[in-house]
Amino acid sequence: MSTLRRVQPVILVHGGAGARAPELAARAAAIERALGEALRRGGAALDRGGDALDAAQAAVMCMEDEADFLNAGRGSVLCSDGGVEMSASLMRGRDRAAGAMALLRTSRSPIAGARAVLERSPHVLLAGPAADALADAAGIEQRPPAYFITERQQRRLVQDGRGTVGAVALDGAGGLAAATSTGGARGQAAGRIGDSPLIGAGTWADGRVAVSCTGDGEAFIRAAAAHQLAGRVVAGEALAAAAAATLDDVASLGARGGLIALGADGAVAMPFSAEAMARGVWRAGAEVEVHAA
Amino acid sequence: MSTLRRVQPVILVHGGAGARAPELAARAAAIERALGEALRRGGAALDRGGDALDAAQAAVMCMEDEADFLNAGRGSVLCSDGGVEMSASLMRGRDRAAGAMALLRTSRSPIAGARAVLERSPHVLLAGPAADALADAAGIEQRPPAYFITERQQRRLVQDGRGTVGAVALDGAGGLAAATSTGGARGQAAGRIGDSPLIGAGTWADGRVAVSCTGDGEAFIRAAAAHQLAGRVVAGEALAAAAAATLDDVASLGARGGLIALGADGAVAMPFSAEAMARGVWRAGAEVEVHAA
Repeated sequence: MSTLRRVQPVILVHGGAGARAPELAARAAAIERALGEALRRGGAALDRGGDALDAAQAAVMCMEDEADFLNAGRGSVLCSDGGVEMSASLMRGRDRAAGAMALLRTSRSPIAGARAVLERSPHVLLAGPAADALADAAGIEQRPPAYFITERQQRRLVQDGRGTVGAVALDGAGGLAAATSTGGARGQAAGRIGDSPLIGAGTWADGRVAVSCTGDGEAFIRAAAAHQLAGRVVAGEALAAAAAATLDDVASLGARGGLIALGADGAVAMPFSAEAMARGVWRAGAEVEVHAA
Repeated sequence: MSTLRRVQPVILVHGGAGARAPELAARAAAIERALGEALRRGGAALDRGGDALDAAQAAVMCMEDEADFLNAGRGSVLCSDGGVEMSASLMRGRDRAAGAMALLRTSRSPIAGARAVLERSPHVLLAGPAADALADAAGIEQRPPAYFITERQQRRLVQDGRGTVGAVALDGAGGLAAATSTGGARGQAAGRIGDSPLIGAGTWADGRVAVSCTGDGEAFIRAAAAHQLAGRVVAGEALAAAAAATLDDVASLGARGGLIALGADGAVAMPFSAEAMARGVWRAGAEVEVHAA
């Protein structure tokens, strides 16, 4: 059925929600460049007839490699022990297949690790050294932990709480997917797992909607935010209303953030309750549109 | 408000869902004894005016200490590397406060560890050695990893996929709570995190409903099962219908299991799609009711 229905492909990305830092203006151009590149990478996959999962993963991988402003892969925020622990998850709407990895210390692309769990493992979520080992076995480049620690993060030149990355995509066959990748929260305890690698909290995709969240991760877990949004859509709420109500619920838990959401009909929502959220959209045949805040 | 409303306290427990093993008859009495003891322990907390979270935790701690038939704490199933990795989570409905630990190897009571996260940490989910360390700092008894490995599990005398434990409770002030604890899935990869420690997947509590799940964990994650049930109740479905529809959705992902659910009005549901589920109920002033399968 879905292979017959031709829809206009769309991809959305975010580069994290958080406070509007004084230095934002100075780096807005660089953030917009990074998001634009991620959108074009994901969009190219969709243009070639690729599915939504490939596109969302490609966009996130592109942002993971950005080391100066985005909190994923190299350049992630530091834990209280001075190390970097990265997490990621992705989900394919058609069959709700999902994969996730948490507490990675050596895998260059956490989202590729999540994809390896989806493809190669009977499990959904793997954490710690076993997760890095599976990623290694799947051919994902391994680097020493020090590779991920940048001078900018050591000197705390990157503002707090910003820079989790995510993408949601709708392919030409009507398939949806969501992907999220993060270095977590600055100063987090080693061993802390936030919402980004958790299906239903930071990431969700089904036949109706795809969602990727960013913000105070604990509140997004306690709100089951990504799944809450999907449930609201099933219950009949319009995508934008469902997205806004979900952020209101997160706010009722005392937290802020943002999310990107995409409906199977091409509806788009990118609300945020934090001061700023880096975000962008690509549609087949149109210019990419990006906002650093 | 809720402190004025006096409701009849209730606690439900489960001891896992799975296949109906030939040896079930021989151990039914022992399982029912263990569940009955857990119900009385949790019920006593409620009788003393304790809140739902204390009661659910007490019931689960009691089952964690059962080493022969239940897959939590000592006697948990073995990972593919021959070790035991335990996980647990709990959630208080009133304020959706939550705590969880995963991949524990030395903490005698994983659910007490989850409670320590709720009480002492800004995070919701901690995993691995850092989680055991926090549990230790919180005064939770630490044992060498070998303590948790029983001869019955080494000889695979305990049937597959059974024995995750959980409890949901309603206190006299109308407060709900849910708690779940597990050793995971037999032969799981080290580092695998299932649904039990994941808020929204294996465990959920809010102002309306409390849920604890058991079964093929990956499908419960992909269904966001515990939160799905809660969302259905918010959307107007009766508790039993919401519970049945949630298990149907899990079945659509090719998996079986069961759950216990409790409404703020005292409504109870304990459905299972697996061949059997150990379960029981305590109500203030009544005899406990337990079923081994």
